[in-house]
Amino acid sequence: MSFPRVVIIGCGFGGLFAAQALRKAPVTLTVIDRTNHHLFTPLLYQVATAGLSAPDISAPVRHILGRQRNATMLMVEAARVEAQKHAVVLQDGSELAYDYLIVAAGSVNHYFGHDEWAAHAPGLKTLAEALEIRTRILNAYEEAERAEDPRERAAWLTFIVIGGGATGVELAGTLAEIARHTLRGEFRRIDPGKARVVLIEGSDRVLPPYTPELSEKARRQLERLGVTVWLGRRVTGVDADGVTMGGERLEAKTVIWAAGVTSSPLGRTLGVPVDRAGRVPVERDLSVTGHPEILVVGDLAAVESVPAIAPAAKQMGRHAALNIRRSLDGKARLPFQYRDYGQLATIGRNAAVAMIGKLRFSGYPAWLLWLLAHIYFLINFRNRLVVMSEWAWSYWTYQRYARIIISPPKK
Amino acid sequence: MSFPRVVIIGCGFGGLFAAQALRKAPVTLTVIDRTNHHLFTPLLYQVATAGLSAPDISAPVRHILGRQRNATMLMVEAARVEAQKHAVVLQDGSELAYDYLIVAAGSVNHYFGHDEWAAHAPGLKTLAEALEIRTRILNAYEEAERAEDPRERAAWLTFIVIGGGATGVELAGTLAEIARHTLRGEFRRIDPGKARVVLIEGSDRVLPPYTPELSEKARRQLERLGVTVWLGRRVTGVDADGVTMGGERLEAKTVIWAAGVTSSPLGRTLGVPVDRAGRVPVERDLSVTGHPEILVVGDLAAVESVPAIAPAAKQMGRHAALNIRRSLDGKARLPFQYRDYGQLATIGRNAAVAMIGKLRFSGYPAWLLWLLAHIYFLINFRNRLVVMSEWAWSYWTYQRYARIIISPPKK
Repeated sequence: MSFPRVVIIGCGFGGLFAAQALRKAPVTLTVIDRTNHHLFTPLLYQVATAGLSAPDISAPVRHILGRQRNATMLMVEAARVEAQKHAVVLQDGSELAYDYLIVAAGSVNHYFGHDEWAAHAPGLKTLAEALEIRTRILNAYEEAERAEDPRERAAWLTFIVIGGGATGVELAGTLAEIARHTLRGEFRRIDPGKARVVLIEGSDRVLPPYTPELSEKARRQLERLGVTVWLGRRVTGVDADGVTMGGERLEAKTVIWAAGVTSSPLGRTLGVPVDRAGRVPVERDLSVTGHPEILVVGDLAAVESVPAIAPAAKQMGRHAALNIRRSLDGKARLPFQYRDYGQLATIGRNAAVAMIGKLRFSGYPAWLLWLLAHIYFLINFRNRLVVMSEWAWSYWTYQRYARIIISPPKK
Repeated sequence: MSFPRVVIIGCGFGGLFAAQALRKAPVTLTVIDRTNHHLFTPLLYQVATAGLSAPDISAPVRHILGRQRNATMLMVEAARVEAQKHAVVLQDGSELAYDYLIVAAGSVNHYFGHDEWAAHAPGLKTLAEALEIRTRILNAYEEAERAEDPRERAAWLTFIVIGGGATGVELAGTLAEIARHTLRGEFRRIDPGKARVVLIEGSDRVLPPYTPELSEKARRQLERLGVTVWLGRRVTGVDADGVTMGGERLEAKTVIWAAGVTSSPLGRTLGVPVDRAGRVPVERDLSVTGHPEILVVGDLAAVESVPAIAPAAKQMGRHAALNIRRSLDGKARLPFQYRDYGQLATIGRNAAVAMIGKLRFSGYPAWLLWLLAHIYFLINFRNRLVVMSEWAWSYWTYQRYARIIISPPKK
């Protein structure tokens, strides 16, 4: 007798928690991902800013699922889903047949039709991108130290973050700390404390999902850390030497893109119309209309009033697994209900904002809560210990231990 | 009044210890390196085999020298030395004038006239190379798990290390441990324990600088760990699918080069004939004949009966600095005398060989000494704590925390 085949595409929070929730189910599970690791994305900005090393926030999926005997992990990339055929077509053309499919392919950077900006302003979705950003940031100070021309030096000492969401705010706050504290006293020709960190946001406030009061508090905390916050500026051009906003121009050699993501293109192969953000509309049980055997979870799923954050993806992943188990047992599926445990965004040392239930608070208490929550949720116990000791060390010394330029930046 | 200008090329053990020994000297010191970090090379094989992360064994030179007010660090690459002109010419064509020059440029991988082998068999000299090797090793198991053809699967599960010196022995021993322990139970289609690790050495024993008895002990320890040791085999070809030794052929998708290094090409620009290994012959005070203002230290210096190991480079670096200080004080220079504190080579868990004075020992006591010595010498205190906790964790769990494939391997 052979078990029903379940395929899960993607090993982010949605895919991994779905896989683990199928631990005891009588299925043959195949989990695919184009990388070999689950990534703790909420801390990816720390890798990009040299606070943590890549392995600190990632764990091999193979190791996490090692003891789950019904699961096979394959490091392959899905090209498209053939919904009629019940098969996932891989990049190499081979096919993976399924009885149930969970699509947890997440999102990718989105440049609003200006893909040519990507080379000058990398986004922050993968470890490779985080290391590329780290290299660019560290290399900029090295170039500034060498530069003879004052204008060139100023451009190397200007750091622009485009986008005032959670990622942009975290990056800008940390960049300011690096300039003012981490690098202090280590250069002879430049003063890193004079570096400019500019956060550009198109709307009229940072952190739009939060209340206007918290957005205002976040902006003030950013400015206290040394970040220049420009609101209501629309970026119209990004090139190797800076950013253009309509008639305005800011020269900078380092630009980071945190202004937008769109859902994985895989969503468009499911045969249903996707929404403007590329997300797949789903039924209340998380399945695709007309295809109860395909469930979509995480950033790729369009579920009303559910934010694109890790806890939501986890809950959807677990719920999709639950509904597959119920179908196997001949039971009716249950509708997905999002449990809102609140939202937290960190800005920098002792600076954060929090919305927990009806509570809204900011500053040190919010930062402490953020710290504890993130250490707690780092999946792997080993990581938790190491990250804690590294953070304690960095907090007292202002040092960032991953300040390593492995290869020169790509030109 | 301006101070004499001292330039140091290279921030390995020789260059860094020379710079630190000039801490209180009345000089204007410029330290250049093509990377931004000092690398603890004795543990580089641990990065290549996923035991440590890159930042664990590296520290920004700028941070190490941050408080040394007479020192400026520049991340630039030297192209050549113009000895007559007392200037170092950089890659961008600009020049750095010196009154004293310490050349500590080290060594590079050497393929004995077969540079085309480099693409198929990366060597282990830099962090970038270590991460490339790590990616290839981890990716090989992923490919094996996917492979349908038994012959292809076998080639992905064969790992060849060319060269039986200290680096080759460390790599082979660790590769065997990964196959037999780290990955156990995590694959469904292959048994990683069946992977073959073959160490190929041209001479008739591994670890030639050690006594024949210790070489034999090392060989036996390697075989006990699961390594196949082939002695007296000369490699005549390396390609994408394996290694040829005369009429013999071994198919393997992963080949690592540990068979040889040659001195930095910078040595050939000093205007004196170099030896067969590209090393620069030096006077007893470590200066270049006819150029008392140029001193050569570390792997680049040809000093009789001084091994190419970190402690020797440190001693030479300190001695070169001492002799510059003596020249500034109008004192006669002192001849360099190498203090031999012994040599240690690790092979794997509880396996190592040691020669300390007249003592020769192997196995667990040698391994323990190796462990303590390496933790002690890791330059930076933070690193020491983190590495210790990581090793303790790995020792008990057999896990290797840096098992992360950041980008797919280059084709």
